[in-house]
Amino acid sequence: MDIAFIGLGNMGNPMARNLLRAGHALKVFDLAAAAVDALTELGARPAKSPAETARDAELVITMLPSSPHVRAVYTNPDGVLASVGRGVLLIDCSTIDPHTAHDLTDQAAARGNEMLDAPVSGGTGGAQAGTLTFMVGGAVHAFAQAKPILAAMGKNIVHCGGPGTGQAAKICNNMLLAISMIGTAEAMSLGANLGIDPKLLAGIINTSSGRCWSSDTYNPYPGIIESAPASRGYTGGFGADLMLKDLGLAVDAARTAGQTVALGALAQQLYQMMSSRGDGGKDFSGIINLIANRKIS
Amino acid sequence: MDIAFIGLGNMGNPMARNLLRAGHALKVFDLAAAAVDALTELGARPAKSPAETARDAELVITMLPSSPHVRAVYTNPDGVLASVGRGVLLIDCSTIDPHTAHDLTDQAAARGNEMLDAPVSGGTGGAQAGTLTFMVGGAVHAFAQAKPILAAMGKNIVHCGGPGTGQAAKICNNMLLAISMIGTAEAMSLGANLGIDPKLLAGIINTSSGRCWSSDTYNPYPGIIESAPASRGYTGGFGADLMLKDLGLAVDAARTAGQTVALGALAQQLYQMMSSRGDGGKDFSGIINLIANRKIS
Amino acid sequence: MDIAFIGLGNMGNPMARNLLRAGHALKVFDLAAAAVDALTELGARPAKSPAETARDAELVITMLPSSPHVRAVYTNPDGVLASVGRGVLLIDCSTIDPHTAHDLTDQAAARGNEMLDAPVSGGTGGAQAGTLTFMVGGAVHAFAQAKPILAAMGKNIVHCGGPGTGQAAKICNNMLLAISMIGTAEAMSLGANLGIDPKLLAGIINTSSGRCWSSDTYNPYPGIIESAPASRGYTGGFGADLMLKDLGLAVDAARTAGQTVALGALAQQLYQMMSSRGDGGKDFSGIINLIANRKIS
Amino acid sequence: MDIAFIGLGNMGNPMARNLLRAGHALKVFDLAAAAVDALTELGARPAKSPAETARDAELVITMLPSSPHVRAVYTNPDGVLASVGRGVLLIDCSTIDPHTAHDLTDQAAARGNEMLDAPVSGGTGGAQAGTLTFMVGGAVHAFAQAKPILAAMGKNIVHCGGPGTGQAAKICNNMLLAISMIGTAEAMSLGANLGIDPKLLAGIINTSSGRCWSSDTYNPYPGIIESAPASRGYTGGFGADLMLKDLGLAVDAARTAGQTVALGALAQQLYQMMSSRGDGGKDFSGIINLIANRKIS
Repeated sequence: MDIAFIGLGNMGNPMARNLLRAGHALKVFDLAAAAVDALTELGARPAKSPAETARDAELVITMLPSSPHVRAVYTNPDGVLASVGRGVLLIDCSTIDPHTAHDLTDQAAARGNEMLDAPVSGGTGGAQAGTLTFMVGGAVHAFAQAKPILAAMGKNIVHCGGPGTGQAAKICNNMLLAISMIGTAEAMSLGANLGIDPKLLAGIINTSSGRCWSSDTYNPYPGIIESAPASRGYTGGFGADLMLKDLGLAVDAARTAGQTVALGALAQQLYQMMSSRGDGGKDFSGIINLIANRKIS
Repeated sequence: MDIAFIGLGNMGNPMARNLLRAGHALKVFDLAAAAVDALTELGARPAKSPAETARDAELVITMLPSSPHVRAVYTNPDGVLASVGRGVLLIDCSTIDPHTAHDLTDQAAARGNEMLDAPVSGGTGGAQAGTLTFMVGGAVHAFAQAKPILAAMGKNIVHCGGPGTGQAAKICNNMLLAISMIGTAEAMSLGANLGIDPKLLAGIINTSSGRCWSSDTYNPYPGIIESAPASRGYTGGFGADLMLKDLGLAVDAARTAGQTVALGALAQQLYQMMSSRGDGGKDFSGIINLIANRKIS
Repeated sequence: MDIAFIGLGNMGNPMARNLLRAGHALKVFDLAAAAVDALTELGARPAKSPAETARDAELVITMLPSSPHVRAVYTNPDGVLASVGRGVLLIDCSTIDPHTAHDLTDQAAARGNEMLDAPVSGGTGGAQAGTLTFMVGGAVHAFAQAKPILAAMGKNIVHCGGPGTGQAAKICNNMLLAISMIGTAEAMSLGANLGIDPKLLAGIINTSSGRCWSSDTYNPYPGIIESAPASRGYTGGFGADLMLKDLGLAVDAARTAGQTVALGALAQQLYQMMSSRGDGGKDFSGIINLIANRKIS
Repeated sequence: MDIAFIGLGNMGNPMARNLLRAGHALKVFDLAAAAVDALTELGARPAKSPAETARDAELVITMLPSSPHVRAVYTNPDGVLASVGRGVLLIDCSTIDPHTAHDLTDQAAARGNEMLDAPVSGGTGGAQAGTLTFMVGGAVHAFAQAKPILAAMGKNIVHCGGPGTGQAAKICNNMLLAISMIGTAEAMSLGANLGIDPKLLAGIINTSSGRCWSSDTYNPYPGIIESAPASRGYTGGFGADLMLKDLGLAVDAARTAGQTVALGALAQQLYQMMSSRGDGGKDFSGIINLIANRKIS
C-alpha cells in the first residue's frame, strides 16, 4: 500500500522501517532533513511538506510529539487535509489530548476522510521489535481497515470505541501507572526504613493486595528485579518527562470532563519536581529518589 | 497446647474457634461477656482478666482493635506480663504501630518472654475459613515455634524479619493498596467520562502497565467484576474505616522514620473524607463515589 | 472617546454602563440580543459582529468568559482584527491563560495594534460600583493611554509588566487565595473539633502568623465575620466554579512553565470535588463544608 | 515566688532568665548539667530530678521538646507529680499534642493540682526579649493566677479555653502558617516564571485577597523583605524541622478528631521532603527552594 508517514523521531523511525519491511511503499516527511534521509536510504520517497507527503497516498500515518504539532500537520495551509484524497484513511499515532483528537476527526470528516487516534505503548524497544500496543479510537470499519497495517508495527491492536477513546485509554492507563509507581516507591522505601528486607517486602506485596505492575514487573527499588531500570541506575525505560507529559494530558482531560483526579494531580506535581531537579531524562521509576529519605542508589 | 486467647471480636472469635477445632485447649478473655460466653459454649474456659487468662498458659495470643488496647492488655497491673510464665511465647495478631510492637517486645524480653507481631490479612472471611495470611515479625526460632499454631488459622505464614516487621509489612502493603485503589477509581471514572466503555477500559488496563489488584481483582467500578463489592453496592469486603486506621498507622510510622509518603498521606485524607460523610462502614472500593462527578451506583 | 465594547455579561454590562456614565460613546456587541438591547436603551449603538463593533472605534474593550471566546472574537473572519483601524488600542479584560494573552498581543502587533491584558478583581459588586482592580500587562505607553479609561470602571489600576503579566498576576493571587482559604477552613474546623471557640481561634490567628485575608476578612466559619458569605449560607461572593476556573489557568500555566504547584493542584482538585457535588454556584469559602466532619451550616 | 523550672534549652534558658530578672526564686533541672550550671551562676538553685525540683515549689513550669518528655517529667517515679505539693499550679509551655495535654491535666487534677497547657510562639528571639505569645488552655482561675508570672516572659497572654486548647490554638495557627507559606512560595515562583517582577507581584498580592503574613511580613522570595530569612539565605528564623514537628501534631490531632486536613497533610509531606534533603535546619520559608524549578538563592 502507498503510505504517507509523517514524523520520523525515536518512535516514528523504527515504525516506518517496519512498514517498509512489510512491503509497503512510503513517502515520508519530517522537519529534520537527516531523519528523512535515513528513511530515504531504505527506499522511502522524501517529501517537502505534509501536503506533498499526503498527496496521492492511500493511507496517512502521523507520529508527532504533541497536540500543536498534530494540529499544524493536519490543518496548516500546507498540511495533510489540504491535499489528501477524499476517502483516504488518516491514522494519528501521537499521544495527544482526546479533545484535539476528536476535533481533528471532525475536520477530517468534513473533508470526506475518516481518522483514527491510535497512540501506542511499548516505547522505542517495542517500536523497533514491532511489538507495540495500539489503542485505537474511531469508527469500527475504519479500525478494521487499519488493523492489518498497524499489525506490521505492533502485536496488540485494541479498539477502544469512538473518536478520542484511543487517547483516553492511554492516558487513563498511564495516570494509574504513575500513581501505582509512586505508591510502590513510598511503600518500598517505608518498609526499608522500618527494617524489612526489600526483596522480602516485594515478595509479600506481590502475593497480596498491594500487587501491581510497578511492584511485580518494574519495581523501583534497586536489586529487586534484575531487568528493571532500578537495577541499572534508572537509565533506559520510560523517561520521567514523558510520564510528566502524559499526566498533564490526563489531568487536563479530567478538568475538561469535570472529574476529580486528586492522586493523579499530585503525581503530576511530583514528576514535575523530579523534572525540575534535572532528572526528567531518567526512567520514571527513579521517582523513588525524590521521596527517599536518602539517595537509594 | 494450652493457649490463652484474648480479644474475641469479629476476627478473634473465628480464629479462636479454629484453634479449638484443631484440638487446642483455650482459656479466653474479652471485655464483652457475651463474646466470652460464645466461646465457652464451644469448650473454652472463661477468664476474668488478661492476667488470669495468661496464668499457666503455654502460649498467649491477642487480637485487639488498636495500640492502646494492646499496650493495656499486656502492661496493666492485671495484664498478661503480670502473670505469664517465664519463657511462654506471646503472639499479638492485632494491627498496631510498629513502634509499640517493638516496645512491647522489649518489655516482654525483659521479663523473659519472646513476643511476635503477627498481623493478618484476609478479613472475617479468611478468619472463618482459616485461610488468613500472617505477616510475622520477631526472632527466627520464635517464628518456628509459632508457625504450626498459626497454621490452624491461616494458610500463608510469612516471616518478615525482626520485631515490628510484621506490622511494617502489613501497613506498607495496605498503604499501597489504598493508593492503587484510589488511582484505579480515578482512572476508571475518567475513562468513563471520556467515553470509553468501563469493561473495555478495565480489560486494557489489566493487560497493560496500569494493572493492579484493585483493577483486576477488586475493580471499584460496578459491573466489572461480579464478585467484587462494587457489584453489590459496596457492602461486605474491607471497610473504609479499617483502611483509614491502617493508613493512619502507615503515615505515622513514616513520620517517625522521616520518610515522605505524599500519596499515602493524601489517600488517608480522602478516606477520612469518605468516613466523615458517613460511608466509613462501606467497602473501601466505595471511594470511587467520593471522586466521581456523579454517584456511580 | 468612541469605544467598541464586546461582551455584556454580569461583569461587562455594569462596566459598559460606567463608561457611558463617564461620557464615552459606545458601540456594543454580545451574542445575547437582550444584553445588547439593555445597553442600547442607555445610549449605546448596537452592532452585529465583533468586526462591525470594532470598525471606526478609537478603542476596543472585551470582557469574555474564557480563552476560546477571546481568541474567536479577535481572530475569526468577522473578528476584531479583521476590521479594527491601525493603531487602535485593544484591551482585553477577560481572565484567560497568559499564553493566549501573549499570542493575541503578537497577532495584534503584526497588524499594527497594541494590546493589553487587563483582568479584574472585585466581582460584580466592584463592577457596578466602579471600584474594580485592573491588573494590566503590556507596553508602558499603552498602559498610560488605557489608564484614564479604565479609571471610569475601577479605582486600582496596576501595571504588572509586559504582555501576559496582568493574567499572570491575577492567577498567582487567586491560586494563593484558594490555598489560604482551604487552609483557613482546615484550621478553623480542626480548632472547633479540638474544643476552641471559633471566634477566639480566629482572633488568635488574626494576630499571629497564620493571619490571612481568608481568616481576617472573609473567614469561612459561620458567625465570625458578619459581612462574609459564611454568615449568609455561602451565597453571593465569589463562586466556587469561578475559583475552579482560575485554578485551572494557574495549574496549566505552571505546567507550561515547568513550575511545581503542589498545593495549587490539590486546591484545584478539592474545588472540583465541591463543584461535582453541585455546590459550584456557592461562594468559594463554602469549601469548608467539603472538609468538615459534619455540615457546618 | 518560688518557682520550679524544668527544661533549660534554647527556649527554656532565656525564659528562666527572665523569671530571675523579675525577682522570682528558681530551682532548676535539665538533663544537661551545663544547662543547669548556666542558670545556677545567675542565682538559681540546682536540682537532681524533676521530683526534687518540684518539691516545696509554689509553681512549676516545664519547657520540653516533645510529648514523651513531658509525660516522663510529670509521671515518672521521680517526676513532678510524685513530689509536688497539693494545690501547686503546673504550667507546661512545651508544644505537644492536645490529647497528652488533656490527659496530664486529668492526672494532675487527680492529685489535687491544676495544670495549664501554655505553648508559646515567638521563637528564641521572643524568649530572650520577653515578648513571647502564650496560648493558654485550662481553668479560668488557674489562668488568672498564671498570667502575671507569664507576663515576665511574654507580652501577649491569651486564654484559649479548657485543657488542651492552648496546644490546639498553636497547632491550628502553625498548620495554617505552613500552608500559606507554601502557597506563597508557589505563587511567587510561578509569577516569576511567568515574567512578573517578584517585588511588583508581592505588592499586588499584599493589597489583594492573596495577602497573608507569609507574603507581607515573611515573604519567602529573596529580596522582597529585607528583614526576612529569605534575604539572608534562609538562616535564623523558625526552623523547618520545628514546623515539621508542629505539622505532625496537627495532622495527628486531626486524625484523632476525624477531621480532614488535606492541605495540612500535604504540607507535612513537603516539609518532610525538605528535611530529608538535609535542609531541616534552615528557616521554614526555604521551602521555596524545594518547589522552585531552579534554586532561587
